[in-house]
Amino acid sequence: MILTVTANAAIDKRYVVTSFDVGSVNRVKSAEFSAGGKGLNVSRTARIAGEDVIATGFLGGHAGEFVQEKLKAEGIREDFVWCSGETRSCINIWDESHHTQTEFLEPGARATQQNQDSLVKKFTELAADCSVAAISGSMPEGCTSDLYKRMLAAGKKAGKKVILDTSGKTLEECLDDHPFMIKPNIDEIQMLVGRKLNPDDTKELLDAAKELHARGIPSVVISLGSSGSLMSCGEGAFQALVPRIDAVNTVGCGDAMIGGFCTGIARGLSMPESLKLASAVSAAAAMTNRTGFFRMEDMKKLEPLIEIRKLR
Amino acid sequence: MILTVTANAAIDKRYVVTSFDVGSVNRVKSAEFSAGGKGLNVSRTARIAGEDVIATGFLGGHAGEFVQEKLKAEGIREDFVWCSGETRSCINIWDESHHTQTEFLEPGARATQQNQDSLVKKFTELAADCSVAAISGSMPEGCTSDLYKRMLAAGKKAGKKVILDTSGKTLEECLDDHPFMIKPNIDEIQMLVGRKLNPDDTKELLDAAKELHARGIPSVVISLGSSGSLMSCGEGAFQALVPRIDAVNTVGCGDAMIGGFCTGIARGLSMPESLKLASAVSAAAAMTNRTGFFRMEDMKKLEPLIEIRKLR
Repeated sequence: MILTVTANAAIDKRYVVTSFDVGSVNRVKSAEFSAGGKGLNVSRTARIAGEDVIATGFLGGHAGEFVQEKLKAEGIREDFVWCSGETRSCINIWDESHHTQTEFLEPGARATQQNQDSLVKKFTELAADCSVAAISGSMPEGCTSDLYKRMLAAGKKAGKKVILDTSGKTLEECLDDHPFMIKPNIDEIQMLVGRKLNPDDTKELLDAAKELHARGIPSVVISLGSSGSLMSCGEGAFQALVPRIDAVNTVGCGDAMIGGFCTGIARGLSMPESLKLASAVSAAAAMTNRTGFFRMEDMKKLEPLIEIRKLR
Repeated sequence: MILTVTANAAIDKRYVVTSFDVGSVNRVKSAEFSAGGKGLNVSRTARIAGEDVIATGFLGGHAGEFVQEKLKAEGIREDFVWCSGETRSCINIWDESHHTQTEFLEPGARATQQNQDSLVKKFTELAADCSVAAISGSMPEGCTSDLYKRMLAAGKKAGKKVILDTSGKTLEECLDDHPFMIKPNIDEIQMLVGRKLNPDDTKELLDAAKELHARGIPSVVISLGSSGSLMSCGEGAFQALVPRIDAVNTVGCGDAMIGGFCTGIARGLSMPESLKLASAVSAAAAMTNRTGFFRMEDMKKLEPLIEIRKLR
């Protein structure tokens, strides 16, 4: 079983408008709603890959019930902490005429200290039955890094692998809690090691990954988009090379990669094998318009084309 | 008791953004949600005026439950027909820097023929206990004027006063069903009588109102915004003159006027007295930022200042 944490869940709404007109009334031609938030993308991709998933985090109000219903329809078990107020909507507006994409992110409901205590408790209970957990994305108002730090500590105490996929200050502040894996992009790893890195210099990047690895993080994956990724882990240093694909939507591909890693780890694969699977899931996710989603047939075609090179 | 019909209910969401950026991610600074749709504004204003109100129409999904909960909190009884799919959201974005207001209207859930039959049945049942009903606004996908025509016929059969506040083709197609009252603005009355009218010529406007009155509509009110209104009804022709006010939000003031008329009619006031009350409610509604809302103290100050002139 895989456990995912989405502290800042959302209803993702995709609007299509013929022509976006600032200062006037825009009739939305079509609107699609889905369960959103990075942890839910992880859940969905791991579920599609065939794993049993249980999702937790915060939900609120009728919008929260909508998310709950969507997860049920996707075969994802869930056990959320309910906050007062409404789960936020994140609106993505596609203007067909000008080909612009404009987003509006609602602030969403606040999580009280009591809500946070409940989530840590729930995480601890649920993690007992899981081999791997992923904590993804940002936190709602009212939370500090302390929430993630407490879950990382609980996971560690129970001997579970906990992946942390967040950014900025939260990521920095949780490093010493030793998540099992982090997946920084170039900007994030530069911030973490405190120096500028040449994105084309594999050695320089791997050195930075190894530096974080040495600080007590078992697996450090640097995601390089279409250039694949680098990983420093207990089994060594590896590079994943992905074939050229026709990417139609790269939003959520990082979450799909985490979904793939969770799947690999849950199946007891080695880290290089998990990296291969995760790279295939992530590339397949880029081939569909739906965020945090992929088709098994795309993944199965891509997997043999992914090259995992041992570097050191 | 007053009955209101909102076929196209919505969650009205008001977003405030610091600066609206097309083509990028906009974090919403504050978001306020309310039960929206013209008929619900009528319900709210009649409720604030002190009347018992029951609201019907179509609702769907978790968004529909949100609307239901809001109405409950406002003391408005409700009995809606539930459709599959989600009640739409209407998003109004205020850009603090550029002072622009941009709206996005979701298409919303479709009402099936069966849903429409259920609404006509419900309307007929609920109308039995009401002295006046108001059918307001547009219809969701799947509906034609036939829905309103059937409700007007049911109201007529039961000897009830049914106000119709809609626009365009729907208004035109329902004229021969003789709603008790219509409230066209200048554009609408021009369309209904099929000729251009001088908005400053009271005689010309009243002639047009009388023409519609003669076609079998007991009360024709022409709304002229800050210039007040004209009414042709069984008791004669009247003009309502409103004092100058500091209008902060004129959205929903027409609905507030209908709420005032419903209140007057439910109390057994004469039509000129109802016009006075309705004008005061509408003007008070313009003095608050909240749509379809007014403060009793504003209304009570304004009411004695409204002048009702008998013209013919």
